[in-house]
Amino acid sequence: MTRVNNNNAQETEDLQQHLQRIIYLLSKQKLVEGFVQMQDIKNLKLDESPVHKQNLTELQSLLDKLHPADIAYILEALPLEDRLMIWDLVKAERDGEILLETSDAVRETLIATMNSGELVAATGQLDADEIADLAPDLPRYVLDDLFQTLPIEEREQLRSAMSYPEDAVGALMDFDMVTIRENVTLEVVLRYLRRLEDLPDHTDQLFVVDRDEKLKGVLPVNRLLVSDPDAKVASVMSTKMVKLYPDDKAQQATHAFERYNLVSAPAVDINNKLLGRVTVNAVMDFIREESESEALNLAGLREEEDLFAPVWKSVKNRWIWLAINLVTAFVASRVIGVFEGSIEKLVALAALMPIIASIGGNSGNQTITMIVRALALEQLNVSNARKLFAKEIGVSVVNGLVCGGVVGLFAFLIYNSISLSLVMTLAMALTFLLAAILGVLIPLTLHKLGRDPATGSNVMITAVIDSGGFFIFLGLATILLL
Amino acid sequence: MTRVNNNNAQETEDLQQHLQRIIYLLSKQKLVEGFVQMQDIKNLKLDESPVHKQNLTELQSLLDKLHPADIAYILEALPLEDRLMIWDLVKAERDGEILLETSDAVRETLIATMNSGELVAATGQLDADEIADLAPDLPRYVLDDLFQTLPIEEREQLRSAMSYPEDAVGALMDFDMVTIRENVTLEVVLRYLRRLEDLPDHTDQLFVVDRDEKLKGVLPVNRLLVSDPDAKVASVMSTKMVKLYPDDKAQQATHAFERYNLVSAPAVDINNKLLGRVTVNAVMDFIREESESEALNLAGLREEEDLFAPVWKSVKNRWIWLAINLVTAFVASRVIGVFEGSIEKLVALAALMPIIASIGGNSGNQTITMIVRALALEQLNVSNARKLFAKEIGVSVVNGLVCGGVVGLFAFLIYNSISLSLVMTLAMALTFLLAAILGVLIPLTLHKLGRDPATGSNVMITAVIDSGGFFIFLGLATILLL
Repeated sequence: MTRVNNNNAQETEDLQQHLQRIIYLLSKQKLVEGFVQMQDIKNLKLDESPVHKQNLTELQSLLDKLHPADIAYILEALPLEDRLMIWDLVKAERDGEILLETSDAVRETLIATMNSGELVAATGQLDADEIADLAPDLPRYVLDDLFQTLPIEEREQLRSAMSYPEDAVGALMDFDMVTIRENVTLEVVLRYLRRLEDLPDHTDQLFVVDRDEKLKGVLPVNRLLVSDPDAKVASVMSTKMVKLYPDDKAQQATHAFERYNLVSAPAVDINNKLLGRVTVNAVMDFIREESESEALNLAGLREEEDLFAPVWKSVKNRWIWLAINLVTAFVASRVIGVFEGSIEKLVALAALMPIIASIGGNSGNQTITMIVRALALEQLNVSNARKLFAKEIGVSVVNGLVCGGVVGLFAFLIYNSISLSLVMTLAMALTFLLAAILGVLIPLTLHKLGRDPATGSNVMITAVIDSGGFFIFLGLATILLL
Repeated sequence: MTRVNNNNAQETEDLQQHLQRIIYLLSKQKLVEGFVQMQDIKNLKLDESPVHKQNLTELQSLLDKLHPADIAYILEALPLEDRLMIWDLVKAERDGEILLETSDAVRETLIATMNSGELVAATGQLDADEIADLAPDLPRYVLDDLFQTLPIEEREQLRSAMSYPEDAVGALMDFDMVTIRENVTLEVVLRYLRRLEDLPDHTDQLFVVDRDEKLKGVLPVNRLLVSDPDAKVASVMSTKMVKLYPDDKAQQATHAFERYNLVSAPAVDINNKLLGRVTVNAVMDFIREESESEALNLAGLREEEDLFAPVWKSVKNRWIWLAINLVTAFVASRVIGVFEGSIEKLVALAALMPIIASIGGNSGNQTITMIVRALALEQLNVSNARKLFAKEIGVSVVNGLVCGGVVGLFAFLIYNSISLSLVMTLAMALTFLLAAILGVLIPLTLHKLGRDPATGSNVMITAVIDSGGFFIFLGLATILLL
C-alpha cells in the first residue's frame, strides 16, 4: 500500500464519525459483542493531532480484533479516502482474507493501491480455491509470480479451480476434504482425526475413498460420533449420497443443497474420482450473488457498484442500459410520429396513449416474472407449456377487459365521448393479450436459444409493448374515430 | 385426501408424459442417481387400463424412494389434476414432510383436499418449529386439535415458535439442540453422544449450558474430535460466539451466517437462557424466499403463484399492482391533458414526450436499486449520505447531458428545429436530475419511516418521473416554443 492519508483535522474527524457509526451498526447487530465496544472508538479521539499516531495504533489493534468479513464491511461503507486509510492499518497478513470478503468493485479500489510484492504476499496465504476466486481481479504478472511460489499440489489445484467458468460447480469447489479408507474401524478414524490439529470448516462428513481416490461413500461425522468405535467404516458409511460434477451448472448444486439440506457434498469426475468438495457457505454466497446480479440486471446496472465510485465509473456502469432504452424509446416515438395527423385532429389521443403502453407493459412484466421463475426451477417444459399458455391468456383477457373498462370509463368522464371510450377499452384489452403472448414467448424463446431469460426479457417486453400499445391504440382510433 | 382421478386414457397418458419429463429433469441433475431410473417410469405404461392398478402400485413404490423435496418439486410442476393424483399415491406418513417443502400456493391446493384427521396425522409427526411453518396454512380447528395431541414440551415450543413474526430470528429457530455441561470431560461427552441414536441435522456444535439453561459456551464438534478426551469441556469450549436473539430481524441472522460462515448458531433470551438454535438451511431458505418475494414485488405480484393456478386466483394476485398503475397512469394522463393546447399547436411534442418520461424513469430506477442495496446492507448512514448524494447528482448530470444531447439530435433530425431540439436536451437533463434526487430521497425516506424501501420505491419513482417528465418537457416547450 502506497499512501497514508492523515492531512487535515476535518478529515480525520469525519473518519472517526464514520467509524463510530459503522461500529455502532455492527454492535447493534449484537454480532461483534465482546469483540469491540463502542467505547473503544469513542476513546480514540482521532481529531487531536498531538496524539494522532498513538490513536492510530489503538485503531489498528481494534481492527485486529475484528473478523475479516467485518473489516470488509467497514471498508465497503467508507468513502475512498477513509477506506484506504483503514486498509493501510490492517495487518498485511490479513489482506488476503479481507480481499476475499469485499465486493468486486471495492476489491478493485484496494488492489489498485497494492504493489506486486504485497499482492503475492497477501494471496499466497490463501487456499487454492480462494486464490482462484480472486484471480480475475489480479494482474497477470502477479498470478504468474504466485504460481512460482506455490507447492506443486496447490499449483495443480489452482489450475484446476481456475479452469471452470464462474457458474460451474467447479468454481464453488474447495479442496479441504478429509479422506479415510473403508477397511478401518471408527476407533482408528477417531485416532487419526485427533492427530490432525484442526478439521477444515464445514467438515460434516468424511469422504471414504479407495487407493485410486475413487469415492466409495461418505461417513457423516454425526454418525461417527454415535456409532460403536469397533465398527468398520464400510459398515457405517453411507453409499447413497449426492455427488456433484465440476462441469455441471452451479445452479444444480444450489438446488441439491436447498432440497437435501446439505452442509457439504463431494465433487467427483466421470470416473468417480474425488476431486474436491462444495460447502454450504460457497453455495450461499453463490445464491446471494445470483440474486443480486439479477436485481442489478433488472435495473440495467452491469455490475455491483462501489457506493463511492467516481462519477465516470458509475456512468459507464449504467450507460449500456440507457443506450438500449434510447433506441427503444426512439422506435416508440416514431410509431407515434406516424399518427401525428390523427393526434392533431383529436388531441385527447396524446393524453390517453401513455396509459395503454404503461399498464400493458406492467402486465407483460408480471407474466414474464412468473415464467422466468418457473424456467429457473426447471418446472416448465413442453408437456405443461400449453396449459400455462392457456392460463396466461385467460388472465390477460380478464385483466384486459376490467382494466379496459376502467380506462374507458376514465376517458368517457374526461372527454365525454362514448366512441373514444370504447376504443380505449378495446385497445387496452388487445394490448393485454399481446403482453400475455409475448410474456410467455419471449422468455421461452430466450431459454430455447440457450440465453438466460432473466436478463433480457424485461427490456424486450417493455420495448415491444410500448411501441405495440401506441400502435394498437392510435391505429384503432384512426380507423374507428376519424 | 378425498379423490382418486383415473377417468380416461388420454389423461393418464398425459400424466405419464409429464412424469417422464420431470424424472428426466431430476435424473439429468444427477441428484437422484441410484434412487429412481428413467426406465422405471417408461416401464409403467399407465395408459393401458387393464394393468392400470398394478402400475399405480409401481408408481407408488417409486415415489416412496424419492426425497420429500423431490416429490414436492414434482407436485409443483404438475397441473392440478395430475398433482392431486400423485398426492393420493404418496404414503400418508410422508405428507407432513412434503407439505413443508412445497411452495405456499401449491401447499394450499394440497391441503384443500385433506380432511381434519388427515391434516392432524400429517402434521403431528413434525417438529414444533416445522408445524409453526405450516400453521398459517392450516385451518384453525386443525391447529386446536394438534395442540391437544402434542406433549407439553412440544406444545410450549410450538406456542413459542408461532409467536414470532415471519421475519424474526425466532421464526427461523428450531429446538433440536444437544446441550452439555461444562464440568465434564470430552470422554463423557463422547459417551453421552453414543447413547443417542442419532444427532440432529446440522449439529456442528454442542451447546454448553448451566443448571438454569444459561448459555456458557459452545463446543464445536470438530474440536471435540481433535481434542484430548481427558480434557474438560470448559477448557475446550469457545466462549466467543455469535448469539442470536429471537426478537431480532431475521436479516441479522442471515448477515451473521454469511459473514462468519456458520452452520448453526444459538438463540438466547435477554437473560442468556438458551431458547433454540438457527441452522444454515433455515437461513438459506429465508434468503431464497426474500430474494424471490423481492423479485415478485418488483413485478407487482403479491405472492408466489402456483404455475397452474385457476385464472381468477392469478387475477387477484396481480390486480392490486395494476390498480395502483391505473391511478398513476391517470395522473400522468391529466398532466398531459393540461398541455393539450400546446400539443395541438405542435404535435411533435406528443411523439417526443414518452422518450423523456421513459428514460428518466429508468435512470431513477438505477439510482434506487443502488440505494436499496446499500440500505439492506446497512452501509448507508447520515455520515456518508451526503457524499453519496453528491455522486448521484454528478452521475445524473453527466448522463442527463449525454442522453439529452442524443435525444436533442434525434429531435432535430426528425423535426428540423433547433429550438425544439434544445428544449428536448434541457428537459432530459432536468428529468435526470429530478430522478437522481428522488432516487436517493424516496428509499431513504421510506427507510426512515420504518418501511421496506425495496417494495414501494420503484412504483413511486416511475409514477413521479412519468408525470414529472411530461410536465417538465411540455411546460418548457409551452414557455419557450409557443
